[in-house]
Amino acid sequence: MAETLLAMFKRPAGGTDALATFLARYRAEHLPLIAQVPGLRSTDVEEVTQKYAGDDIVMVTRMTFDDQAALDAAMASQEMRVAGRNLREIAPDMLTLVALGGAVDHEAVA
Amino acid sequence: MAETLLAMFKRPAGGTDALATFLARYRAEHLPLIAQVPGLRSTDVEEVTQKYAGDDIVMVTRMTFDDQAALDAAMASQEMRVAGRNLREIAPDMLTLVALGGAVDHEAVA
Repeated sequence: MAETLLAMFKRPAGGTDALATFLARYRAEHLPLIAQVPGLRSTDVEEVTQKYAGDDIVMVTRMTFDDQAALDAAMASQEMRVAGRNLREIAPDMLTLVALGGAVDHEAVA
Repeated sequence: MAETLLAMFKRPAGGTDALATFLARYRAEHLPLIAQVPGLRSTDVEEVTQKYAGDDIVMVTRMTFDDQAALDAAMASQEMRVAGRNLREIAPDMLTLVALGGAVDHEAVA
């Protein structure tokens, strides 16, 4: 069953300049590093267009792997270590990172 | 362009009993209410299988709508108001809710 790595980024301190810098460096530096991670099947970056409740999240990235073994290998890889180091530099205290099991519920209501 | 509503739930205070109660009530009470919301195209509930960094998120639900107008109408609906009231009861202080624009970046690396 596909395994997803979900990265949620809180708004950086420092106003719109800090946010623009983070977004630019994320694309220019971090995404190319993430693309090197073994076993990664797809990466979707989505920006928050509206906040309704809770934490001030500004961006969410979804990375998918074939299964738990592929995700575990990716997390233990040198490439992920390099990507993580980059993220600690460009996004200090902004990241929440979790793995999501395959959808445990799906209702297509259309 | 499709618009996504992303709900992220933090672990409730009260240990494993509180988490089990929340998960059970979310499925039994909340999902049927969400299913009534006009314009909702799909609902995917995914439980966190591993936490790597940041906040202690336990579940993420992804709800999709055809476009911004459909999302706005849904958020303003009586059905969403009822679902929101239910959530404030079963998941106090646990929810972060944001809208995500269509993927601004997609890299299929497979």
